Amino acid sequence: MLDHIKIVLVGITHPGNIGAAARAMKTMGLSQLALVQPQQFPCAEATARATGADDVLAHAQLFDNLAASIQDCHLILGTSARQRSIAWPVLTPRTCAEQLLAIPHHKVAIIFGREHSGLTNQELDQCHAMIKIPTNQSFGSLNVAAAVQIIAYELRIISEELQLTTEGNLKKKSLTFRVIPASAAAMAQFYQHLEQTLIDIGFLDPLKPRRLMRRLHRLFNRIQLIDSEVNILRGILTAAQEQGRRHKD
Amino acid sequence: MLDHIKIVLVGITHPGNIGAAARAMKTMGLSQLALVQPQQFPCAEATARATGADDVLAHAQLFDNLAASIQDCHLILGTSARQRSIAWPVLTPRTCAEQLLAIPHHKVAIIFGREHSGLTNQELDQCHAMIKIPTNQSFGSLNVAAAVQIIAYELRIISEELQLTTEGNLKKKSLTFRVIPASAAAMAQFYQHLEQTLIDIGFLDPLKPRRLMRRLHRLFNRIQLIDSEVNILRGILTAAQEQGRRHKD
Repeated sequence: MLDHIKIVLVGITHPGNIGAAARAMKTMGLSQLALVQPQQFPCAEATARATGADDVLAHAQLFDNLAASIQDCHLILGTSARQRSIAWPVLTPRTCAEQLLAIPHHKVAIIFGREHSGLTNQELDQCHAMIKIPTNQSFGSLNVAAAVQIIAYELRIISEELQLTTEGNLKKKSLTFRVIPASAAAMAQFYQHLEQTLIDIGFLDPLKPRRLMRRLHRLFNRIQLIDSEVNILRGILTAAQEQGRRHKD
Repeated sequence: MLDHIKIVLVGITHPGNIGAAARAMKTMGLSQLALVQPQQFPCAEATARATGADDVLAHAQLFDNLAASIQDCHLILGTSARQRSIAWPVLTPRTCAEQLLAIPHHKVAIIFGREHSGLTNQELDQCHAMIKIPTNQSFGSLNVAAAVQIIAYELRIISEELQLTTEGNLKKKSLTFRVIPASAAAMAQFYQHLEQTLIDIGFLDPLKPRRLMRRLHRLFNRIQLIDSEVNILRGILTAAQEQGRRHKD
């Protein structure tokens, strides 16, 4: 029931945290681990801290960047300890678990950032929403494996409640199964198409494009476009591009 | 709101786990830590893993045995990964948090056991109920600091919901504030009185007393006697003792 959920750890510096995260995952029934640029992996300390969850480490996938690790995912949630200046939609661990389990047949990802600095804004741009784990206001310094443990725990709680419902024993929880957002790969193509079109029609200056594109990323990620909507938008982009070409001719 | 809750770690062998537990506590707003026979404490590794929660370590209280650490507590909940042969009342982390927060003005304790073997049955005898954290059935090996993190997280969630209620902003949660069980110290005196009486009236053979007393411990802990009930029972015990003495005279 939890196999479609990928835990992505970005830029972890202490290999012990990777092992502890693997153990935290396995205790709650999660198995899909992706590592983006870990400082050291594989590593004896990671294996030691995994104590029995070596299989999760052995099957962990390694990536050079976050985008590559989430290509096949349809819902991407980032974790953050800090308050960010620009508002992403914010989920609690519980609502995060409910949202991910409402898409049981498509891959989804939860992203955890570096020990000291978390995720960059550029990485959060690739997320549909942020998860904020409630903490002590004067000491919010959660260890990354401890954060994985809390999220994994909530996933297990909700999945057990759902299983009870499925078996008809207890009707505690009913999730609305929802439409599936387009994959990160499809969205990446869309953003590329969008950027090129904005350049083609003279709206975007390719020499200082960053701010505009980041805002558009956030805007469209927040909407969680589905495939058919992406197709419509790309149709419009193509039409705009052709219009531009006809003008030149 | 969480200051009446004491986290008791029994027989921890890896000092890193003590530090990680302190950090887990502080992130969720807990501060009262008791250590029963830690293998090594204080210890640089504990401080390193606490990263910023050194104050929790600095104020940690050290004890020679579990009974001494919980004397002032009125509700004592033990954690256990294994299924025990004799049934203790079992709580989920969430119901545990609700029960502890329903007694906000009396000290309460949550006990975590050794890394490999958990709590002994003799230690569990001193608990009113057991907390079972839901885990993967084929891999339930939670790290002790990770277990502390989960319980502390549930305490924070419930306490935040209660604060919202108190401030009248949101009426999500209403706990029934409940009668206060007698303290562990009062119960210890009661058990001593009970055992002596059973010996006096010839019901208990002091040469092989253990099994009977353990069953009586569990029985009375499960009922969660309040002070006035303890007084009634001790009155009965005293009467029984005097009856025996009169017979002898």
